[in-house]
Amino acid sequence: MNIEQMRADTQAVEHLIHFNNAGAALMPKPVIEVMTGHLQREARLGGYEAAGQQALELDNVYVSIARLINARPDEIAVIENATRAWDMAFYSLPLRPGDVVLTSTTEYAGNYIPYLQLKKQRGIEIRIIPNDEQGQVSLSALKVLLEDDRVALVSLPVIATNGGPVQPIEEIGALARTADVLFLLDACQGLGQMPIDVQKIGCHMLAATSRKYLRGPRGMGFLYVERSLCQNLEPVFLDLHAASLQTPDTFNIRGDAKRFENWECNVAAKLGLGAAVDYALAQGIEPIWQRIQQLARYLRERLTLVPGVTVRDLGALTSGIVTFTYQGSSSAQVQQWLASQKKRINVTTSTLRSTMLDMQRRDLLEVSRASLHAYNTEAEIETLIAALTHMPRT
Amino acid sequence: MNIEQMRADTQAVEHLIHFNNAGAALMPKPVIEVMTGHLQREARLGGYEAAGQQALELDNVYVSIARLINARPDEIAVIENATRAWDMAFYSLPLRPGDVVLTSTTEYAGNYIPYLQLKKQRGIEIRIIPNDEQGQVSLSALKVLLEDDRVALVSLPVIATNGGPVQPIEEIGALARTADVLFLLDACQGLGQMPIDVQKIGCHMLAATSRKYLRGPRGMGFLYVERSLCQNLEPVFLDLHAASLQTPDTFNIRGDAKRFENWECNVAAKLGLGAAVDYALAQGIEPIWQRIQQLARYLRERLTLVPGVTVRDLGALTSGIVTFTYQGSSSAQVQQWLASQKKRINVTTSTLRSTMLDMQRRDLLEVSRASLHAYNTEAEIETLIAALTHMPRT
Repeated sequence: MNIEQMRADTQAVEHLIHFNNAGAALMPKPVIEVMTGHLQREARLGGYEAAGQQALELDNVYVSIARLINARPDEIAVIENATRAWDMAFYSLPLRPGDVVLTSTTEYAGNYIPYLQLKKQRGIEIRIIPNDEQGQVSLSALKVLLEDDRVALVSLPVIATNGGPVQPIEEIGALARTADVLFLLDACQGLGQMPIDVQKIGCHMLAATSRKYLRGPRGMGFLYVERSLCQNLEPVFLDLHAASLQTPDTFNIRGDAKRFENWECNVAAKLGLGAAVDYALAQGIEPIWQRIQQLARYLRERLTLVPGVTVRDLGALTSGIVTFTYQGSSSAQVQQWLASQKKRINVTTSTLRSTMLDMQRRDLLEVSRASLHAYNTEAEIETLIAALTHMPRT
Repeated sequence: MNIEQMRADTQAVEHLIHFNNAGAALMPKPVIEVMTGHLQREARLGGYEAAGQQALELDNVYVSIARLINARPDEIAVIENATRAWDMAFYSLPLRPGDVVLTSTTEYAGNYIPYLQLKKQRGIEIRIIPNDEQGQVSLSALKVLLEDDRVALVSLPVIATNGGPVQPIEEIGALARTADVLFLLDACQGLGQMPIDVQKIGCHMLAATSRKYLRGPRGMGFLYVERSLCQNLEPVFLDLHAASLQTPDTFNIRGDAKRFENWECNVAAKLGLGAAVDYALAQGIEPIWQRIQQLARYLRERLTLVPGVTVRDLGALTSGIVTFTYQGSSSAQVQQWLASQKKRINVTTSTLRSTMLDMQRRDLLEVSRASLHAYNTEAEIETLIAALTHMPRT
């Protein structure tokens, strides 16, 4: 991993300190170039003709993603975003009345609302896996919960949107496998930040986004569905890419994970996703993960020394998402103050609205979120700390 | 409408004759610029921060679309493509066993497969509205079909992907309203080509794409849902943009059509869609429609004079989609020959796979498709005719 090169590929770092990588990271130059290049190609040749010319490159997007997560290309569906990728998996599951979904306190409202919807529509039951003393999913509690035959699904995020623990996903996956229960992993905040290996995790389905730690374009994501499950899961939506008419009365659903896609997509963004994966692979996920953890540790140490600041992250293993509160100031005030600095600093705010279970348990309404990537530096952290220290407070 | 200006805004016409506007039209310069401009903004500011800066422009996308189809902005959901827009409407309908869906012979397989899926899953019944002698939906037959109380939905495309008639959508809408039956209109091939006024049509739902006659980006579309219906239709997918958590056990679905959206989207493409709508409105839909019809009539006349060519379009009113077969040549051969001309000519092939009901009835396996837009010219048509005339055939 070459940090000089990463920063050179990320021109905005000259005038901007971007600590919103868990929202949308800064895209490196090769990603931008692939996308603008394809838009120009579409203008020059036509949208379909341009895609036809890039057929091989488009196939390679699946190969790259498969390499990133240690899957097979035919287990990957490229979908317009992680929400719809996750939806295509979750809502396609044949959940019946009384079936139990196990999730974590760190679950995102965007996934939790669908659980509640199917609770209302189909009578499923939601159970929250208790945390251990460090704040992550308790494996012993999960093991007990999995003894109930009605448990049909374990579904949780590897890292919460508001920081907190990196869940022990390999151990969770092993327990789910042993109990013969499906495991749907929301890898949105993990992918591109840390190694995600579906073979090691043993998850059956995984949804992820392009725009966060992977540094790809907005409006793009993917779904992994294990090959053996794929053919038994009828997608909730079908079209003539996912299926084909055999006669006017019969259709065939394709066998690979593309059954969860539809024909049309933003081709430029799909190529951009592929470029982002290739970029991450070229840097190396393991060195990226080491550096992110090191920077985040440094930021937490420095934040602890700022009077009034409380770091809010829990867990035996934490990620590049650093959350804190600042006594006497709202998170909106923190965000605005940092954005108004001479060298603008991007942080954001996580609210109860996004992770209600976790925030309520910790009696928090909101936290400030600074999410670091490998292209960030200690010097940028020092600038943040100085700005926070000099922030006018009531 | 200024054709010189439209061509100046479409640089590719200098080296390319693009008759694939029903696949994806050439985007005009303002659309490309808005998109590449926003990608650069994302690289400069961050993805969320760039969207925040364009909040007003993003709101205006809804205003522009509403103006284009004579709806209200709160009746519009911007969705990643027309397939998923249509899906969000169709699959969200509370169709029950025995409910009847009426569609046309011109229905697209991408919609027909979902009918078959719900036939299998929920026991709905599909009935095909007979055509009149001109090949379009028979209004008298529709009227009779609508007398059955079990009819829950009329759903069809304004124009088929393989050409054919422009359906009498205002008359269909009036009949559906009188019978108190929902009407879902697939406007993909109509929008940007012809006037589409949801008040005049009286449709309850309408799905459309950005990339075809509207000349917007790929991977973008929208759904119109009439305000009074919207609040009674629970979207098949929900997230924390479409709904919000009230307590850990309850959620509220938002009241406007954004309940059919999800939080994440390709912001550059969304702005590009808005720019495409504004561009079409500035040219004027009525003059665009007049010119497209005039060019298509001219092309049909000229094709009729080429020995071996048979024009395959039916209907009292036809569109800019011109289909034909060429005795002794496959559509693939026609397409390849035209693409190999010194000045490349883009046409495409429509197969049985996409519109099986229509093609089977007409005993066709495939047709060549030349779809014209207002920025095309008579001279381009002459070049096509000359190339076809000189095509080596077996």
